Amino acid sequence: MRVGIVGGNGYIAGELLRLAIAHEHCEILHVTSRRMAGRYVHEAFPSLRGIGHLQFCRPNATNLMDCDVVVFSTPAGTAMDWAPQLLEAGVKVLDISPDFRLRNPVQWSYWYKRRHACPDYIDQSVYGLPEIYRDSIPTSNLVANPGCHATAVQIGLAPLVQEGIADHNRLVADVFSGASGAGRNAGASFQLGEASDNTRAYSAPGHRHSAEIQQNLEELVGTPIQLAFVPHVVPQIRGIHATLHVELTEEVDIQKLFEEKYHRESFISVLPAGSYPQTRSIRGSNCIHLSAQQNPETPNHATVMVALDNLIKGGAGQAMQNLNLMFGMDEREGLVSIPHSP
Amino acid sequence: MRVGIVGGNGYIAGELLRLAIAHEHCEILHVTSRRMAGRYVHEAFPSLRGIGHLQFCRPNATNLMDCDVVVFSTPAGTAMDWAPQLLEAGVKVLDISPDFRLRNPVQWSYWYKRRHACPDYIDQSVYGLPEIYRDSIPTSNLVANPGCHATAVQIGLAPLVQEGIADHNRLVADVFSGASGAGRNAGASFQLGEASDNTRAYSAPGHRHSAEIQQNLEELVGTPIQLAFVPHVVPQIRGIHATLHVELTEEVDIQKLFEEKYHRESFISVLPAGSYPQTRSIRGSNCIHLSAQQNPETPNHATVMVALDNLIKGGAGQAMQNLNLMFGMDEREGLVSIPHSP
Amino acid sequence: MRVGIVGGNGYIAGELLRLAIAHEHCEILHVTSRRMAGRYVHEAFPSLRGIGHLQFCRPNATNLMDCDVVVFSTPAGTAMDWAPQLLEAGVKVLDISPDFRLRNPVQWSYWYKRRHACPDYIDQSVYGLPEIYRDSIPTSNLVANPGCHATAVQIGLAPLVQEGIADHNRLVADVFSGASGAGRNAGASFQLGEASDNTRAYSAPGHRHSAEIQQNLEELVGTPIQLAFVPHVVPQIRGIHATLHVELTEEVDIQKLFEEKYHRESFISVLPAGSYPQTRSIRGSNCIHLSAQQNPETPNHATVMVALDNLIKGGAGQAMQNLNLMFGMDEREGLVSIPHSP
Amino acid sequence: MRVGIVGGNGYIAGELLRLAIAHEHCEILHVTSRRMAGRYVHEAFPSLRGIGHLQFCRPNATNLMDCDVVVFSTPAGTAMDWAPQLLEAGVKVLDISPDFRLRNPVQWSYWYKRRHACPDYIDQSVYGLPEIYRDSIPTSNLVANPGCHATAVQIGLAPLVQEGIADHNRLVADVFSGASGAGRNAGASFQLGEASDNTRAYSAPGHRHSAEIQQNLEELVGTPIQLAFVPHVVPQIRGIHATLHVELTEEVDIQKLFEEKYHRESFISVLPAGSYPQTRSIRGSNCIHLSAQQNPETPNHATVMVALDNLIKGGAGQAMQNLNLMFGMDEREGLVSIPHSP
Repeated sequence: MRVGIVGGNGYIAGELLRLAIAHEHCEILHVTSRRMAGRYVHEAFPSLRGIGHLQFCRPNATNLMDCDVVVFSTPAGTAMDWAPQLLEAGVKVLDISPDFRLRNPVQWSYWYKRRHACPDYIDQSVYGLPEIYRDSIPTSNLVANPGCHATAVQIGLAPLVQEGIADHNRLVADVFSGASGAGRNAGASFQLGEASDNTRAYSAPGHRHSAEIQQNLEELVGTPIQLAFVPHVVPQIRGIHATLHVELTEEVDIQKLFEEKYHRESFISVLPAGSYPQTRSIRGSNCIHLSAQQNPETPNHATVMVALDNLIKGGAGQAMQNLNLMFGMDEREGLVSIPHSP
Repeated sequence: MRVGIVGGNGYIAGELLRLAIAHEHCEILHVTSRRMAGRYVHEAFPSLRGIGHLQFCRPNATNLMDCDVVVFSTPAGTAMDWAPQLLEAGVKVLDISPDFRLRNPVQWSYWYKRRHACPDYIDQSVYGLPEIYRDSIPTSNLVANPGCHATAVQIGLAPLVQEGIADHNRLVADVFSGASGAGRNAGASFQLGEASDNTRAYSAPGHRHSAEIQQNLEELVGTPIQLAFVPHVVPQIRGIHATLHVELTEEVDIQKLFEEKYHRESFISVLPAGSYPQTRSIRGSNCIHLSAQQNPETPNHATVMVALDNLIKGGAGQAMQNLNLMFGMDEREGLVSIPHSP
Repeated sequence: MRVGIVGGNGYIAGELLRLAIAHEHCEILHVTSRRMAGRYVHEAFPSLRGIGHLQFCRPNATNLMDCDVVVFSTPAGTAMDWAPQLLEAGVKVLDISPDFRLRNPVQWSYWYKRRHACPDYIDQSVYGLPEIYRDSIPTSNLVANPGCHATAVQIGLAPLVQEGIADHNRLVADVFSGASGAGRNAGASFQLGEASDNTRAYSAPGHRHSAEIQQNLEELVGTPIQLAFVPHVVPQIRGIHATLHVELTEEVDIQKLFEEKYHRESFISVLPAGSYPQTRSIRGSNCIHLSAQQNPETPNHATVMVALDNLIKGGAGQAMQNLNLMFGMDEREGLVSIPHSP
Repeated sequence: MRVGIVGGNGYIAGELLRLAIAHEHCEILHVTSRRMAGRYVHEAFPSLRGIGHLQFCRPNATNLMDCDVVVFSTPAGTAMDWAPQLLEAGVKVLDISPDFRLRNPVQWSYWYKRRHACPDYIDQSVYGLPEIYRDSIPTSNLVANPGCHATAVQIGLAPLVQEGIADHNRLVADVFSGASGAGRNAGASFQLGEASDNTRAYSAPGHRHSAEIQQNLEELVGTPIQLAFVPHVVPQIRGIHATLHVELTEEVDIQKLFEEKYHRESFISVLPAGSYPQTRSIRGSNCIHLSAQQNPETPNHATVMVALDNLIKGGAGQAMQNLNLMFGMDEREGLVSIPHSP
């Protein structure tokens, strides 16, 4: 599997490099960064010191066509410009950016404030959340890697929505993520001096990621849903904690439901009743810890808590899981490291 | 106002000492701590170095009767043992512990796993949340200082519940607080090594503080309510951020509603539409920053965000506000300092 | 005291605003920021919400001449352009930037990579470290506020250097400061994601602040000195901790020496033998905690530890202390608040 | 390699479990913890969820004798009680505790306040710092794993001391470590509320770890040395940053010296001139990043900076490196993971 990475200087790209270097069947052909072209990757990521002499290069279509797959870890709007020519040349595309997550180009334009460059290719794309769409990934040449918030919320809500036991008009998702989610060039409000010892919400009345979640949940259930989605920033490096509230339309043992739904999943651990996920327990790994709670006094209300690493299961790890599937390998390949603690 | 403080070695007591020392009409007669008896308060709180020679003493009823008011900053179960004799001796009692927050002694026993020591005194007590119960405080000799979670949730929900425009069966409160909320003797999970870079929920299906909230909201509205209350710990020293979800039963401009409700309050700032509270903006102060959001696409759903300092408006500052009211002073006395930033 | 603040959007300016607003004899006439002109100060500093309607304006010489004093909280190179005309107009200048800290314009050019704009005015300036140069400040119209590192190191070394008991060729200063020291527009390495859970040194072989320290210590002792100064960044918002190593040339009880030297100082607390300063104990205050240690086995080696708040005693607080002295007031005016804890 | 771990509930034990589980030739026979006996290891370390059904047991001599090697990750004073019988039974012992680090039992008693239980065994022990004592480790049955501070300081100073170019009477080591260094049961001062946003020194005039360093450096050089060693705590989970000051007795290019000394070492990376180590770059790995600086103006003064992970190269990783050497394997076995970033 010869891989090219476009947009190699960001946090998720750095983690993808780390995973790819350690992956037995992965060869990194090119890693591009306009700003860092000609410099060693360990200058951008000192933690990669000692792994060899990989250098950043400028993005170049001819070079990228030598790859079996090109991964885009770019801001919105880049992957859609490059994808058509790569796909035409027989190169697979895995897009970590949001360019192919929304199926409706009009909606894409609404959230990202520009026209979609290749609406005809959207239909070819598959949403790369293996725990829900695993079967479609191996046969697709264009996979859209989900957002980190969207992964957490969908993993927590999909089983209840699919079973038809959730009141679709009263879904609530309070999601808390670490500062790395804002990327390497986030503004002053993500400086340690301002982001440390601070919790705040943002974009409550509407967030790009809620569009992606809503679209997919509506597809699963076949009817419109109402989701109150509030993203927050908490003073930590990594990690997403989603707290999800669902009004149940019938009596059900949700502990059992989640265990049955996910017990075959390598990367999802449903915690025993009464315990709670912690973001530190999955830091640096592709795992999700999930817990479902019902208060005996209000049994129609379920609270689902989901913890994952926004840069791994919410980014580079999920990308590697998708690459494994796209190339017919065991999806766990290169993703078995145990998180360190504390 | 001659004040005694019982349980003087904890975080809230330390902040109360700080506020009381700077208060023009406050004289600290006694501050007790069994463990620190005989030592200077600045040995427990090095930040108090330079404020004089105040020493901890053992708790002693005779001495405490010299005070005009005794403040209990103790674990559950201490204040109720001391309150009767102090009240009989004409000494006012302000209880920062939970002993007098629940009106039903049976419910108190359920949450605190022991019998209430003076159920007859519960009725004399007033709940010291001035923004809702201001009128009752000056005439009471026994004031129960609210919990920090409870303050945040009630300030955010009470206006909607009182107006009768909230669906009482679908109230959701996701509350995030810093590690200081667990007190000075919290366990290993609050060590920096384990609590840093970590977010987790706890006690989702039922928490002592939800009892206090539920009792008071039900009193306000006159009917049972259903509140899903999930407390979380985030990796910061101080601060509470409550994210509250309410299904509205009629169309209303909640921005305007909150502004009208609170515009006369010295310690509550309703932020302009579109902005969000941050815990760092009120750190160290008695202020609450509150914001109310409605998504135009789902106008029946309101999200209310409340930020306060768990040790000040959720503890020592509210205590000082209550003391001011109990002794006929301006409630802002000694509480006007501006938070530092960043 | 009518004050103008130029460069009002930075962290130190924000803290100076906080202190000035609470100061009884301070009136803020103008606070300038090109970028924020026309906006309320609480938009830049949400912690100032509720203090009134102060707005940023563009810097304008005519307006600034209405002030009794103009404070520059600007990057290097701005104050020196404005100072002459203000001074000529009878307006005092307090410069928090480094423009007037070095007495030798050639050395200034070496460190700041441009010519000094008004070398003739350097001689008029006084170095505003009151604990060492208090007598010169009231009579000066141009005061250079020291850097934060420089304040910590000089307060710790000056007594030993002045007494002639330090080996001047072997002074070591390892200084650790929080991320706010890098300012509001610091780069990606100060993002919470990269600065949190991280300690690193920078500029070991030479740092602007060591020039300022070396110049002043050499002036005090009258001979050249050798100072190994290594600045570090630690993952905290505020605070400087300087650990200073001195080889003593004669036997001396340094605990006693520091106590005698500083016991009349309002803002310096020499801790009892065996205890250690902590940056959290002086957070937000103008105080310095200092401790001096001698290992009985190596009595010729002294370790001096100094903790201060880089934005207060290392910035805005010291500025206010200087303003008080420049206008004949008690230097403690507006600087007595007790740090909160924890 | 069948391994027993005694004291399995601490941070270093947790990391050793993580490494051992992933190690191809390691089988964990027993992991003991009196307090957690009968419970799964993932109850103590939720990050180990999914690795199988390993349970804690009570420490028991008969069981431990089934092991090829027993690792002690216990407080001072336990390993010395167990080592003799294990060694007599042919079981190797690797002691992560300080019981066998000091060669002089009188000195051991001075620092640890009790008699050494098996002084006759001290001579059998080898100090397990492979980069200096590699040759002795494979032939020893009793290896003392160095302390974390001691590893950092010795790696930084040994090359200069061994070359005879350091003034032995003026060595300075300011060492900064994260809170995990104090262990899982550290007191209130390590609670996030008190340890966060705080830097402080402790034990400046003498620390257990300086005894270990001094003993070994004196052995290397053959004369007494004077080392001023000041440990500090900084608000981060992991990481040690040592800043070392050396007066050079002759002119030398220390960049070259360190590169030559360490270029064959798998776990030491000497950074290019002008760059600085960061603790985050080696977090979770067994690597050391080291940088050496000389100010051209004071070329006789060298500053050496060393960063390592206190729980890995300063604990569990070094232990695994020693185990590999004790059993004739490649010392890198199981230690090649790349640190994640940020």
